[in-house]
Amino acid sequence: MSLNEDYRSDHSHILGITPIEVVCPTTADEVKACLEKAKENRWDVVVRGAGTGMTGGAVPISKALVISMEKLNAILDIDIPNRVAVVQPGVITGYLQAEVEKQGLFYPPDPASLVICTLGGNVAENAGGPRALKYGVTRDYVLGLKGFWVDGTPFSLGGKQHKNVAGYDLISLLVGSEGTLGIITEITLKLIPLPLHSCDIQAVFKTMAEALHTLANLYTHGIFPSAAEFMDRSCLEAASLYLNKPLDTQDYRLLCQVDGFSEEDVHIQAERLLSYCKKNGALEVEIAKTPAEKSKLWEVRRCLSLALKANSLNKTSHDVVVPPASIGHFLSMLTSWSNESVQLLGYGHLGDGNIHVNILNVGLDKAEWEKIEPLLSQNVLELAVNMGGSITGEHGIGLTKKPYLHLMADSRVMELYRSIKAVFDPENRLNPGKIIN
Amino acid sequence: MSLNEDYRSDHSHILGITPIEVVCPTTADEVKACLEKAKENRWDVVVRGAGTGMTGGAVPISKALVISMEKLNAILDIDIPNRVAVVQPGVITGYLQAEVEKQGLFYPPDPASLVICTLGGNVAENAGGPRALKYGVTRDYVLGLKGFWVDGTPFSLGGKQHKNVAGYDLISLLVGSEGTLGIITEITLKLIPLPLHSCDIQAVFKTMAEALHTLANLYTHGIFPSAAEFMDRSCLEAASLYLNKPLDTQDYRLLCQVDGFSEEDVHIQAERLLSYCKKNGALEVEIAKTPAEKSKLWEVRRCLSLALKANSLNKTSHDVVVPPASIGHFLSMLTSWSNESVQLLGYGHLGDGNIHVNILNVGLDKAEWEKIEPLLSQNVLELAVNMGGSITGEHGIGLTKKPYLHLMADSRVMELYRSIKAVFDPENRLNPGKIIN
Repeated sequence: MSLNEDYRSDHSHILGITPIEVVCPTTADEVKACLEKAKENRWDVVVRGAGTGMTGGAVPISKALVISMEKLNAILDIDIPNRVAVVQPGVITGYLQAEVEKQGLFYPPDPASLVICTLGGNVAENAGGPRALKYGVTRDYVLGLKGFWVDGTPFSLGGKQHKNVAGYDLISLLVGSEGTLGIITEITLKLIPLPLHSCDIQAVFKTMAEALHTLANLYTHGIFPSAAEFMDRSCLEAASLYLNKPLDTQDYRLLCQVDGFSEEDVHIQAERLLSYCKKNGALEVEIAKTPAEKSKLWEVRRCLSLALKANSLNKTSHDVVVPPASIGHFLSMLTSWSNESVQLLGYGHLGDGNIHVNILNVGLDKAEWEKIEPLLSQNVLELAVNMGGSITGEHGIGLTKKPYLHLMADSRVMELYRSIKAVFDPENRLNPGKIIN
Repeated sequence: MSLNEDYRSDHSHILGITPIEVVCPTTADEVKACLEKAKENRWDVVVRGAGTGMTGGAVPISKALVISMEKLNAILDIDIPNRVAVVQPGVITGYLQAEVEKQGLFYPPDPASLVICTLGGNVAENAGGPRALKYGVTRDYVLGLKGFWVDGTPFSLGGKQHKNVAGYDLISLLVGSEGTLGIITEITLKLIPLPLHSCDIQAVFKTMAEALHTLANLYTHGIFPSAAEFMDRSCLEAASLYLNKPLDTQDYRLLCQVDGFSEEDVHIQAERLLSYCKKNGALEVEIAKTPAEKSKLWEVRRCLSLALKANSLNKTSHDVVVPPASIGHFLSMLTSWSNESVQLLGYGHLGDGNIHVNILNVGLDKAEWEKIEPLLSQNVLELAVNMGGSITGEHGIGLTKKPYLHLMADSRVMELYRSIKAVFDPENRLNPGKIIN
């Protein structure tokens, strides 16, 4: 029974209630059997993938049967003429990507956890990643879903058809529903042609405004970066400490990727990007073409989460979204709320305004932190929403963002959410207490 | 009152019931007032754009107040740093496209009616077009919606944020809901960088299989066409007659577009495409770079709808979808059902398998046609669904496809549709009788 303990949490590190039973089905029929057993016993049902969720979506908070999809992990079909992959929910995202890339095809969504997270989890959370800027998020790639409604009745929505406007879009409703509406056992994903070439460019600016202005210029002058990440000086300071190497920490870094179907195309885009960066005041530019060069360029960006954790007593993360043009103002507000005990900073996806905000305890005792952290979190999320943004761009609502959902959804919309949930799951047994109460 | 007669129909040519009242609001407040008046009087409410819908979605079939969005037609904002356009629903699709292209930005969805149809209608039907192959459909570009629920309560969902996973995806649910769930008065659309260059290529093949094989090869070898249309020999015969010029009607035509951010890139893609076409047996290839050359190349494809109508006594159109690899088999089935009195043929979007099927009466009297046409329609739609496709890829369900929705949605899904409708519109007063009963 100690096994069951392992399924009480996820990457939110919230410790839920030990499951009544943990099942790792190997067939869809076994999933159906689980649901029927749960129905008979009036148990709740919580489905999980790799447990990499950041908001507690996979944490059981009632006496529940946990269905872990880890063994339902086959790529059923990579169908080249139809440009789709058909997968079971337990397939690791990065594994599918590697397999389709061998065939010259591309599945773009690239959450940070892609080497361990599962496609079922990606669907449940509507995962994104840096490439979302150019290529969209998981929802943009889901053509078909098979699975079971809460009572064990099977469903099959969409499939290998690339267009479909028949009836209300239940697929989009299920994507991002965090296991609260139905259980997914098979996913049909759209694949696109693999860009064969790419190149990474880092530009260092004196001000965030210059970096933002550069990016806005790119879009209107024939460049579509496949990623545009940023780090400000407070992030660079943390990285410098963590990596134990000097970094020019007085500046803002913009890290872009351009990709395309020919070396010539990537070269032209990269040259344009470099020239815009310089024209807009870049102090320094660096270009990376080989895997080793690219890896070096991304070292700072990649270490940030760990660096910030290492340099603080406690860390709370939010993945807010603001309209891209408001990023500068948003970050300056975070700075204004910082002091010698608490530091607020942000980094992430400059292109689509999806900012990973960190609230760091650098000097408070436990009691003080526990008092002040919720207030600061509330401030951060309210600020994003007041700027026309969102309380979450990638991580979902789960448990941790539930107290803030009302910032984005008025009472009528909350009521609609509850009614939709009741339509799919009238007894409230599918991952109860997630997204809404 | 004769004005009201004009609002009884749309491009489906179904003649509905004369509206109780037709209102052309110029502000969102007037829309709200309409809804309150309708509520008071227990009238149904039917919203319409330009009335270019093909399935009767805008046809009032009960005593209803009709809200025509023709005067709510302002582009409120083209926000370059945030890469969005904010528009009222009555804005003509092609007009927005021209305006954003002046700024170097791009709104891709391109339904055939784009010079007259409205963005509100596009949202209601989730419109597509040839460019959907590379760029997706309307739903992929809707970041925010404002409007009113049936009782006049305002809503605001999403906005200028490019990512958002907070709560169930009500935006995707409203897109394609054909005015049955809520009334939209403001739309925020994602814009992307405008591809500055493009080139069209036509290849003539002996067999559909060769054309399909070519296309499947392209995707895995670094070419992403922005359109891939096909016409088979029966279409070419009709076009030859209509245009009164000889066409090589023994063959299959593939008409592709490639686009990109540099001339060099487009040139490389075009050369690759040409070489794949030749390698796969193309009898003839033609390349068009100037607007005049492009226009000549598209002449045959563009005239098809009118040509088929001109060459027949009656014409029924369906826009089915099949998995792309099944197109050849699907078309051969249509041919096998044709005879000297009734001709079935298809053309359209080869890339995404969205086929415009035409059932043509070329020799039956009215009574015979009215007997046989529904049977053939049923066969065509059943065949598409049995192949793993859809009964509609672009035109929606409206009235004309409603009898066939059950082919795609089992009784449980139909029940979910009805329950969702009831959640949003408990008195069934928003465009009643559309999509579902």
